[in-house]
Amino acid sequence: MPEAAAPAGGTLRGAGVSPGVGAGPVRVVAAAVPEPPAGARHGGDAEAERAAALAALEAVAADLEARAARAEEVGNAEGRDVLNAQALMARDPGLADGVAAKIGEGTAAARAVYEAFGAYRDMLAGAGEYLAARVADLDDIRDRAVARLLGVPVPGVPESDEPFVLVARDLAPADTAVLDPAKVVAFVTLEGGPTSHTAILARTMGVPAVVACPGCTDLPEGTRVLVDGAAGTVRVDPSDDEVRAAQDAAAARASIIASAAGPGGTKDGHPVPLLANIGGPQDVEAAVANGAEGVGLYRTEFLFLDRATPPSAAEQEEAYRKVLEAFPKGKVVVRTLDAGADKPLAFLPPPGDEPNPALGERGLRMLRRHPEVLEAQLGALSRAAEGLTARLEVMAPMVTDAEEAAFFARACRDAGIAHPGVMIEVPAAALRARDLAAEVEFFSLGTNDLTQYACAADRQIGGLAHLQDPWRPAVLDLVALAAGAAAEAGRSCGVCGEAGGDPALACVLVGLGATSLSMSAPSLPLVRAALARHTFDQCREAAQAALGARTAQAAREAARALLPGLAELGL
Amino acid sequence: MPEAAAPAGGTLRGAGVSPGVGAGPVRVVAAAVPEPPAGARHGGDAEAERAAALAALEAVAADLEARAARAEEVGNAEGRDVLNAQALMARDPGLADGVAAKIGEGTAAARAVYEAFGAYRDMLAGAGEYLAARVADLDDIRDRAVARLLGVPVPGVPESDEPFVLVARDLAPADTAVLDPAKVVAFVTLEGGPTSHTAILARTMGVPAVVACPGCTDLPEGTRVLVDGAAGTVRVDPSDDEVRAAQDAAAARASIIASAAGPGGTKDGHPVPLLANIGGPQDVEAAVANGAEGVGLYRTEFLFLDRATPPSAAEQEEAYRKVLEAFPKGKVVVRTLDAGADKPLAFLPPPGDEPNPALGERGLRMLRRHPEVLEAQLGALSRAAEGLTARLEVMAPMVTDAEEAAFFARACRDAGIAHPGVMIEVPAAALRARDLAAEVEFFSLGTNDLTQYACAADRQIGGLAHLQDPWRPAVLDLVALAAGAAAEAGRSCGVCGEAGGDPALACVLVGLGATSLSMSAPSLPLVRAALARHTFDQCREAAQAALGARTAQAAREAARALLPGLAELGL
Repeated sequence: MPEAAAPAGGTLRGAGVSPGVGAGPVRVVAAAVPEPPAGARHGGDAEAERAAALAALEAVAADLEARAARAEEVGNAEGRDVLNAQALMARDPGLADGVAAKIGEGTAAARAVYEAFGAYRDMLAGAGEYLAARVADLDDIRDRAVARLLGVPVPGVPESDEPFVLVARDLAPADTAVLDPAKVVAFVTLEGGPTSHTAILARTMGVPAVVACPGCTDLPEGTRVLVDGAAGTVRVDPSDDEVRAAQDAAAARASIIASAAGPGGTKDGHPVPLLANIGGPQDVEAAVANGAEGVGLYRTEFLFLDRATPPSAAEQEEAYRKVLEAFPKGKVVVRTLDAGADKPLAFLPPPGDEPNPALGERGLRMLRRHPEVLEAQLGALSRAAEGLTARLEVMAPMVTDAEEAAFFARACRDAGIAHPGVMIEVPAAALRARDLAAEVEFFSLGTNDLTQYACAADRQIGGLAHLQDPWRPAVLDLVALAAGAAAEAGRSCGVCGEAGGDPALACVLVGLGATSLSMSAPSLPLVRAALARHTFDQCREAAQAALGARTAQAAREAARALLPGLAELGL
Repeated sequence: MPEAAAPAGGTLRGAGVSPGVGAGPVRVVAAAVPEPPAGARHGGDAEAERAAALAALEAVAADLEARAARAEEVGNAEGRDVLNAQALMARDPGLADGVAAKIGEGTAAARAVYEAFGAYRDMLAGAGEYLAARVADLDDIRDRAVARLLGVPVPGVPESDEPFVLVARDLAPADTAVLDPAKVVAFVTLEGGPTSHTAILARTMGVPAVVACPGCTDLPEGTRVLVDGAAGTVRVDPSDDEVRAAQDAAAARASIIASAAGPGGTKDGHPVPLLANIGGPQDVEAAVANGAEGVGLYRTEFLFLDRATPPSAAEQEEAYRKVLEAFPKGKVVVRTLDAGADKPLAFLPPPGDEPNPALGERGLRMLRRHPEVLEAQLGALSRAAEGLTARLEVMAPMVTDAEEAAFFARACRDAGIAHPGVMIEVPAAALRARDLAAEVEFFSLGTNDLTQYACAADRQIGGLAHLQDPWRPAVLDLVALAAGAAAEAGRSCGVCGEAGGDPALACVLVGLGATSLSMSAPSLPLVRAALARHTFDQCREAAQAALGARTAQAAREAARALLPGLAELGL
């Protein structure tokens, strides 16, 4: 690239969490709508104020319907239903009455809308089920209406006819339901880490992403940027030459990656099965397309969410069988229902108020209180595997000790399941992995939750992203402990957290003793290419170097220095 | 005791968490009030329904005022103020109007009260400050009024003229504000563990307590029981002989304990300073009375709670100086403000919604975002110690890694504080204690939070008490790692969690390398006596036996088998 092509702007730096290159104009997700001040009064013309409030609610409803139509166009039926339901709520006559009454008492329209939604919220709360999701939907409608009345930007993902780079403080699942993958060329966020929703979504969509990128939300709307999701850079006002060069480099890298086919393993032939994390049969196609040798994490809770009663035995059996049939020579690791915490189920409520759901009754803890749900699921799994050649392995989430592991292994064997295992995601389970290894056939390391608990830092809080880094040496210590205990007992120890999808960390995990890696399907080719460029000894040396570091950053650098093949991949 | 004196009832077993013996009639704390069903309608006589609702609110207000008067009698000024404020809320005319309006629409009185409180709740939320505490107060008033209207028992601690044994599912701080220590002879709860509010309160009051005791809430009101808080037993309908024998044994034990005076240490003279956990100058008297050699944990947040702005420098300085003056030859370990999580402060709100506050921005994480608060506190501490002979040590809560430890040590030294340290309560900090030891002068193990995070089990959830046991070998592993790293670097490593107050565990902690133990003052004599009955080698052997166990129960038993002196103390 010629020196003369120096950029008009500079370069912002963050953490690259989904590789690839994308260039386009910036569209910024608007910030949260402020709460209209308590006690705000209107000028006296209640009639005009009422008309403004109702017009705002109607405009919101119409906009939501339009978005529902677009969600349908991009094939997002669930998004469509949520948006249409929201439009109905925005037009609810009871709500309009409440707003009108408050305006009649002198309250300003924006505040009246804000308060009327509060009363509505209580009604929903009283009604019992689905509270969490519906309340968030209500808040979204309220914010849209209040934004219109206050004349501030409407929150949420912007609309655009041309492809754009989506810039945000952080993205929540609700923000991204209507995203058209063809329109978003890259994600850049101010907060978030490698396990944030943005990072996972970007990898799933195969779109480049840079997170934890200071300054990105100050970029003026429409600024042209060049995002490199491998290097973690955001070039402001790049020249055409720069964009072309970056795209050529990305294409060259993509062709190297595409050439890495076949089963996963190191350069010297140490096998490392590469598996996919899936949510159901709908994800099998992408897994197969990316060369997954099987499924390392089948998150069965998607089958249970958003319904009033558990799925029937037949429905479960069918969903499991479809996945098992797709991998006749591979293995399929199914995680039993991981309800609770951020995945509440209407028919399995927690036993009481949980001030910290992530530290509450979730995973196996909940299944033990509802043995009929566990039994039904294990039965369906066992029947689904009958007559098929895939190797079915079944594991429990949120296991703390050997007693729980033994309980689960017994339940599996009673149901005719030969290969029971446990997730290692609670620090105590990693510390005492030797005891757990005596009870089950395999471990699967959930690095996301393991990091969350080991560092006592909520995965859902963007501001604590620096504490949620799986490269932290303390987390690597726990991985080494669990993998070592598994090896000693002759058990396998896979990794199914997002950490396995980071090519450099994948090599380190193998060096620490991980016997397989499971990840979002689009991450598989790059990890396969990275492993194929290094010997098992190189992986082990990189792992030792990372363990010897004092910080996540130092661990990353020490490992990379011993993994020269990463540079060939542009990493 | 003669065989003939066999009991009429049986014996319930739980975990003894506060030693001593108490006998008396059972008084059960009533269960939560059910939510009146949504859509409940009254018979048609709105006027009568309104009168009933208002009478219920007035009766609640009068009762709260009476309780406020009693709180004043037992010297609980804070409890009095809260209760009087609640009485005002129960009589709020806006609330009464809301109830009347809903009844006018046909809603049944109990449901109308329930819903009207919801609207009130939103107003409070809109007003901003003090939300958490006030909402709980509101819920309490609502429950009392609803209970009266539904004719179910009013929740909360029962009233009694004669001493009684308080039995509950679990106790929250709000339940116990008006407890008269002279009236409660023992606590028994269905849930909870050694770090539950009940356990801590019982030890602070010096009242025997048994927690995690199945069947206790089924005991009929008024049943006579004999509670042994050391053995963890609840004898139903004991004979007079049994009560006398138990009281004699407890008295004998108390005299043995009382004879163990002077500085803490093992039988063979290995010194183990025994320190007190305190919340402020008001706790110094009990600490000195129980022979504390200093303060191992000064929780400074009590100075900051329930106020709109931080305490002034002069106010802080005075509170710190009073404590330092009380221990001219000892040390005083002060923990800087541990706000966030279950201790929210009005002037230091979290940066956003925290779905899991215990995994959020608390402790040092919050202080780094508010450097002026940390600087003011360290300055006040430094000035408070000027000219005094007590050794001032200052530690940061919620430290995760060496970088944070280095930051805090720098801040202390900049303020003229010579002995900076860190709490070890995050698993990552224990795992990487060697790195942290290079940065600070001492560690203090917070076993309560360390257990909570290592086992991913919320301390506030009684149903997960079995996962919150500090005897869990995984927790002991972390203690051993931290103490070992401290010893290697020539640093001290105290324990300031409730674990240190369990006489058997205290011996094990010393055997694992704890260099001092800090606890609620009333626990000190028994721990002093237990340590004085064992050699350092016996403690080390007990520690190794506990580390070799697979479960908390097995660890407890293995250690006790090697600590014969516990039996002499009736433990």
